[in-house]
Amino acid sequence: MTIARFSASNQCVRSGEWNARVGAGGAESEGSRSVLGRYLTLLSAFDPVTPRMTLAQLTARANLPKSTIHRLCGELLAEGLLERDEAGTYALGIRLFELGELVPRHRTLSSVALPIMEDLREATRQRVHLAVLDGVDVVYVEILGSSAVDVSSRVGGRLPAHATGVGKAILAYSSAATVKARIAAGLPAITVRTITTPDALVAELRKIRTIGMSLDLGESHLGIACVAAPVFGANRRIRAGLSVTGPVASIDPGILGPAVRTAAFTLTRALRDTGL
Amino acid sequence: MTIARFSASNQCVRSGEWNARVGAGGAESEGSRSVLGRYLTLLSAFDPVTPRMTLAQLTARANLPKSTIHRLCGELLAEGLLERDEAGTYALGIRLFELGELVPRHRTLSSVALPIMEDLREATRQRVHLAVLDGVDVVYVEILGSSAVDVSSRVGGRLPAHATGVGKAILAYSSAATVKARIAAGLPAITVRTITTPDALVAELRKIRTIGMSLDLGESHLGIACVAAPVFGANRRIRAGLSVTGPVASIDPGILGPAVRTAAFTLTRALRDTGL
Repeated sequence: MTIARFSASNQCVRSGEWNARVGAGGAESEGSRSVLGRYLTLLSAFDPVTPRMTLAQLTARANLPKSTIHRLCGELLAEGLLERDEAGTYALGIRLFELGELVPRHRTLSSVALPIMEDLREATRQRVHLAVLDGVDVVYVEILGSSAVDVSSRVGGRLPAHATGVGKAILAYSSAATVKARIAAGLPAITVRTITTPDALVAELRKIRTIGMSLDLGESHLGIACVAAPVFGANRRIRAGLSVTGPVASIDPGILGPAVRTAAFTLTRALRDTGL
Repeated sequence: MTIARFSASNQCVRSGEWNARVGAGGAESEGSRSVLGRYLTLLSAFDPVTPRMTLAQLTARANLPKSTIHRLCGELLAEGLLERDEAGTYALGIRLFELGELVPRHRTLSSVALPIMEDLREATRQRVHLAVLDGVDVVYVEILGSSAVDVSSRVGGRLPAHATGVGKAILAYSSAATVKARIAAGLPAITVRTITTPDALVAELRKIRTIGMSLDLGESHLGIACVAAPVFGANRRIRAGLSVTGPVASIDPGILGPAVRTAAFTLTRALRDTGL
């Protein structure tokens, strides 16, 4: 039940963001900009709940003429960005996975972070998350630990930054412009506990800077808590958020905070040492 | 040194494959087909050795006019498929990572396979690989175990199927058309031990079907050996290859073969049970 609710809200955020992008860029260069936009409309129609679709389902979702969808699918198939099984069902293609594995903000960070995340999981026995900011959202780049019943986070998943422990830890050390952009994009309630007013968010970020870590008590999932700390890159700018997550009753910030902060300091130092 | 050689050959295969695709599709639909092709030429210019490039480097690699590159980069930046840092250097964007994480041939398979791969790593103390076939190559979708000095395999990496243990295990249970396509694409030597003649490959695949597993003795990396077994999907067709890999001296097929085959049978059963 939690998973369904979570996915639904996640999708709303994504399609909202998507529409915003299309709206903003549409006027400047209609020609090939809209061509790229149409390819992405098609690719973005797939999500964790519906990873495979027939041409009819795709047409219904992508809101483009069937003949256009048919042609675009053919082109995307030829390039390996889409795949089709014997039943004629479409899915995202392995070539997208290959390209995605080359993204430095995932790959470079993960290669340095994974051993440190494994130590943190071993020491705390909780689920460990690493996320980066993308615009006004966080994207999870690495997750360790078996998924507890109520935690539906996934690698590659996206959530509004203000609603998560990792996101608040990142926002607290980001530029004023970044915080402003999050507020301007709205502060949607993911649960009844999500921070939804600009004043409350600004006060929360100030508190995070004072104690060096952020807490999420049911703000992204009711019943789930998270302790997060900021990670900085070799250029000393905020780079990621690191957290431990679990059922509220099992998360004691007084005990877990020092562990998460230690791991975040270690990762920051490792990134500086490797010049990444 | 091994890594450099490996990457170089890997790139040759990729650009060769790329040119073949462009050549094949170019005539049918010149218009937007070439637009998608140009976007992908740009995105494919990035590789593990050069994950970040200036506009000048990109122009040199992508072999397109600088003004075209500039425009395409702007469009890809606006969609989050590219990112640019404060120094003006370009990299693949986090949105590609998000899309890649939704690819079912990676995600669905990995979710079922990871616990079984962890058991295999624990029992054998070797590096464990899971790969799928894409055209005539294998793509690694999951790797467990720290990277030994001479093993440069990486998640998302691609190698010609005939030159690897996992690839031969998959080819042995694939259709005659698939084997024919691999032979038609050529059998390049990745090392001096790679199988390079059609007759030798056909005989090798017959042997693999007899013993139910494949061996790679320095065929993809000199000094590195691998024992692999086939994994079948819910539709009973070949789905993936599972392997353990390590320095030749540490890989005893008589001991490791039963472990790898057991894990591959378990994964096949798990995929059938879940209907994946």
